[in-house]
Amino acid sequence: MSVAREFEAANAKYAASFTKGNLPLPPARKVAVVACMDARLDPARALGLEEGDAHVIRNAGGRVTDAIRSLVISQQLLGTREIVILHHTDCGMLTFTDDVIRDKIRSELKQNADHIAFLPFKDLRQSVLDDIEILKQNPLILDVPITGYLYEVETGKIVRVE
Amino acid sequence: MSVAREFEAANAKYAASFTKGNLPLPPARKVAVVACMDARLDPARALGLEEGDAHVIRNAGGRVTDAIRSLVISQQLLGTREIVILHHTDCGMLTFTDDVIRDKIRSELKQNADHIAFLPFKDLRQSVLDDIEILKQNPLILDVPITGYLYEVETGKIVRVE
Repeated sequence: MSVAREFEAANAKYAASFTKGNLPLPPARKVAVVACMDARLDPARALGLEEGDAHVIRNAGGRVTDAIRSLVISQQLLGTREIVILHHTDCGMLTFTDDVIRDKIRSELKQNADHIAFLPFKDLRQSVLDDIEILKQNPLILDVPITGYLYEVETGKIVRVE
Repeated sequence: MSVAREFEAANAKYAASFTKGNLPLPPARKVAVVACMDARLDPARALGLEEGDAHVIRNAGGRVTDAIRSLVISQQLLGTREIVILHHTDCGMLTFTDDVIRDKIRSELKQNADHIAFLPFKDLRQSVLDDIEILKQNPLILDVPITGYLYEVETGKIVRVE
């Protein structure tokens, strides 16, 4: 059975006890979270988010460079006024470089991925600080509170980076 | 109090009962989910995902055009072999056009955003079909099962799009 079919079965249970069908479109807590796609990180559970609370933007590394389109829509059309960045320990982005993945794609897929910046990093704390700075310097992003954290996959804790 | 500080308090509770500190980095169920950032959608709860199960990539609209970097990393470095796309009813992406948001940014922020494709859409079902096709046509994406769904924010149900 494909995982998609398993999702359908799990969703039938979720929908059977669903009580949140009247939530407004704009996030109630006016916050956008930018987090890594990592399987071990569940931003809703780890941060206490309920359905309706927050935009959650996720990508490889939780890099803001890949989140500008979404953040502009979040702020300009849906009223969020705070940003939280969530990277994490043992991140896959620490394990490679652009050259490594481009070579793998060239060798295994016979394709050229030189046009893609994969945004890996060597220093976790610095990756959070860099992403805060990128947002502060971007004139399309409003001057709102931005807080960065590292999630510890070993303990479930978030640690503020500043 | 900022929402970030509220997140810290909620996280202290999550970490206090955390028991999943030994999960491997690659997703156990070998699947990557591409979903909208919408606040009302909690992909983990709606699809029955536990920590460690799946990559979850999220952006405005759940558009795959914005997820290629992450999907390539997910497949090439972390072994996922299935993709699930999750858009939803009452999506904010149905409510504007590139011209509308670019004009708003020009008028309110005095900035030019003409270089950003905001990827809105007019037809929900078609947006899912389009994104499946974009992935199938991209030579950097492996030939794996791709299933698309619409999540109904009114009922909590997912409906397969095909």
